[in-house]
Amino acid sequence: MKNFKVFDGNISSPIGFLASGVHCGIKEKNKDLSIIYSECPAVCSAVFTKNKVIAAPLVVSKKHIEDKYAQVIVVNSGNANACTGEQGMKDAELMVELTSKKLLISKENVIVSSTGIIGVPMPMDKVKVGIEDGVKALSKKGGLDAAQAILTTDKNMKNIGVALEIDGKKITIGAMAKGSRMIHPNMATMLSFLTTDAKVEPTFFQNLLQEVTGLTYNMISVDGDTSTNDMVVCMANGLASNKEIEYDHPQKDKFIEAFKFVHEYLAKSIVQDGEGSSKFIEVQVIKSPTEEDAKLAVKSILNSNLVKTSLFGEQSNWGRILCSIGYCSADIDINSIDISIGANNAIVKMFSKGKALDYSKTEASEILKNKDLKIIVNLNSGDKEAVGWGCDLSYDYVKINSAPIA
Amino acid sequence: MKNFKVFDGNISSPIGFLASGVHCGIKEKNKDLSIIYSECPAVCSAVFTKNKVIAAPLVVSKKHIEDKYAQVIVVNSGNANACTGEQGMKDAELMVELTSKKLLISKENVIVSSTGIIGVPMPMDKVKVGIEDGVKALSKKGGLDAAQAILTTDKNMKNIGVALEIDGKKITIGAMAKGSRMIHPNMATMLSFLTTDAKVEPTFFQNLLQEVTGLTYNMISVDGDTSTNDMVVCMANGLASNKEIEYDHPQKDKFIEAFKFVHEYLAKSIVQDGEGSSKFIEVQVIKSPTEEDAKLAVKSILNSNLVKTSLFGEQSNWGRILCSIGYCSADIDINSIDISIGANNAIVKMFSKGKALDYSKTEASEILKNKDLKIIVNLNSGDKEAVGWGCDLSYDYVKINSAPIA
Repeated sequence: MKNFKVFDGNISSPIGFLASGVHCGIKEKNKDLSIIYSECPAVCSAVFTKNKVIAAPLVVSKKHIEDKYAQVIVVNSGNANACTGEQGMKDAELMVELTSKKLLISKENVIVSSTGIIGVPMPMDKVKVGIEDGVKALSKKGGLDAAQAILTTDKNMKNIGVALEIDGKKITIGAMAKGSRMIHPNMATMLSFLTTDAKVEPTFFQNLLQEVTGLTYNMISVDGDTSTNDMVVCMANGLASNKEIEYDHPQKDKFIEAFKFVHEYLAKSIVQDGEGSSKFIEVQVIKSPTEEDAKLAVKSILNSNLVKTSLFGEQSNWGRILCSIGYCSADIDINSIDISIGANNAIVKMFSKGKALDYSKTEASEILKNKDLKIIVNLNSGDKEAVGWGCDLSYDYVKINSAPIA
Repeated sequence: MKNFKVFDGNISSPIGFLASGVHCGIKEKNKDLSIIYSECPAVCSAVFTKNKVIAAPLVVSKKHIEDKYAQVIVVNSGNANACTGEQGMKDAELMVELTSKKLLISKENVIVSSTGIIGVPMPMDKVKVGIEDGVKALSKKGGLDAAQAILTTDKNMKNIGVALEIDGKKITIGAMAKGSRMIHPNMATMLSFLTTDAKVEPTFFQNLLQEVTGLTYNMISVDGDTSTNDMVVCMANGLASNKEIEYDHPQKDKFIEAFKFVHEYLAKSIVQDGEGSSKFIEVQVIKSPTEEDAKLAVKSILNSNLVKTSLFGEQSNWGRILCSIGYCSADIDINSIDISIGANNAIVKMFSKGKALDYSKTEASEILKNKDLKIIVNLNSGDKEAVGWGCDLSYDYVKINSAPIA
């Protein structure tokens, strides 16, 4: 039983948030500039890519987030402003300046984000017009336009709204994301933005996001490559007038549950969206001595090209799953492992405690025909667990990623 | 100028080594059991897979190698004797016993090795006949048969001989390997065996092999998956009558050079052999602060699916190379990096010190049409370097690895 309600909402659903998405010509067609605006400065939490190659907008945004407050996020698609040297830094700062001037807010309260081609200077004349138009277009109904304007090669928009009650007040969370396994032209970027009208204590909000990122975005694997532009930014403007949510708040768990649900939903949507994937794979590692060991095993399975190709081929190849667990750095006793595959309500155990089982190949074959698959690995050696999501490796993945840069 | 001569030799070329390869029916057709025999106990060095899933023959062989001597290696293909539980251990021990009895040598001097399908019990009746036939067939000319009988899905045999002079004595090294990127039916196993008539001090020999493995087999990447059965075993029987080669031997470097050349040759042959690969990629990371950082960067580039697919598509995508360096755990300053691609004598620098260069796309395109490609990354921050070898990611890789298990 969930303590929140999921509804057809988006980034501008919570009280006091406006949004817009416009076309300014960075991309040939389609919207390419989004603005998310809070009527008052909001508590802001964020996580950024761990890639050592960090795009200019992330360098600027990291600085602006140090005081834990922000009021506006400006995002462009079509150009990542990455590997663009000093000019790139100037351009990111100019985007901040233009936005702050138009909205009459402090530069330190502007977060800037970019996704698209790398190594190419930003067309700042177009971006300038985009910011002007975007500010004019800000509205309570702009959430969907904003979600559209951050997309690059995604097939679908990724929006969600949830509502819950804390201290007798209605709290709304809205969120959107972009990212797909189709990497074009140079790399996949994952962006995720969340707004809420909840009042939240800043340090609690930052710690919560970091913890949740470890359980959601960091547990999806498309091809093991980490982009230069990945970022997740959350704003909480407090206009719902609840008592500030922090570690001692009696209903904090309700908020945590809803917050985690939203990020998990978006993380899975990113994996599900990709062109070139024919299967959505959930990997559960259960009864692990530690959560860290379980996570390492989950990721090793999800990143194995041999596991991924065998799932594309609908082969019940437990040997490759076992092998990928065997070479991960987790402290695992291979002789106590069980490996099962499942889909819907069917499940087949293929390997148990060091030996192959004489399982029904027909049953396994039926399961593997499904689009949504589960791999369950029982380590039989503790009470911790982890779950992660990925996809198979198909001809289309090779096709898409070996194609010329547009 | 090399201090050794490469010749068309094999595992039975050095003085005092005999070999054989026979068909005993583990595989439907083709030879499937090899024996390598030294007339006297030989100094033996070995390295084994680091996968936590370790096949039974490796457990047995590790024990037998503890005293640093061995006299015979018995290898079967067609069945890996992995994930076979207690019976698998008994079968590996029985292979040792049968071989030791037939050759009248101590069980502790027998090394056993298996490659092929996993999770299936060894057909020991067939193996028994194979060992009997293999011992009978041992001969000075048996090296090529032995090299053939260890193959699984390899397209080509991998043999090499080198000769050099130490202390005025002719030293011969012979070697063979198996392994290909086509993974069938469950995982790729890499086996490599080397014989020499040189007299070598046991600890020096073991340390040398470990060091050389780190520079050769551990620097090839086919799909990042490490098998349960990988092993490299070297035997030195001393019959060339040189003074024992150890750390203080004045000509030890000549031996090291030849020994490393042989392993590098075999490691590259494994990468080159694979079905499904259309490009052979050498990655050099130069001017690194440490060798370890350089190795991490080399492996990260070679393992990136995005880099591999772009090379398959002959795209000069420096962004993906940069990105893969950016997320490896090496301590690298991205702003001082140069990235070039080359083939034959042509080379094009695409990226320098944080920025894309305005390089000739036509020239890059010409280079990328070659089968043998080089990626050169200059970190401009030290004097260490590393080199590694891998291949692209093609439709055929997906095709081969998504196919049903035979």
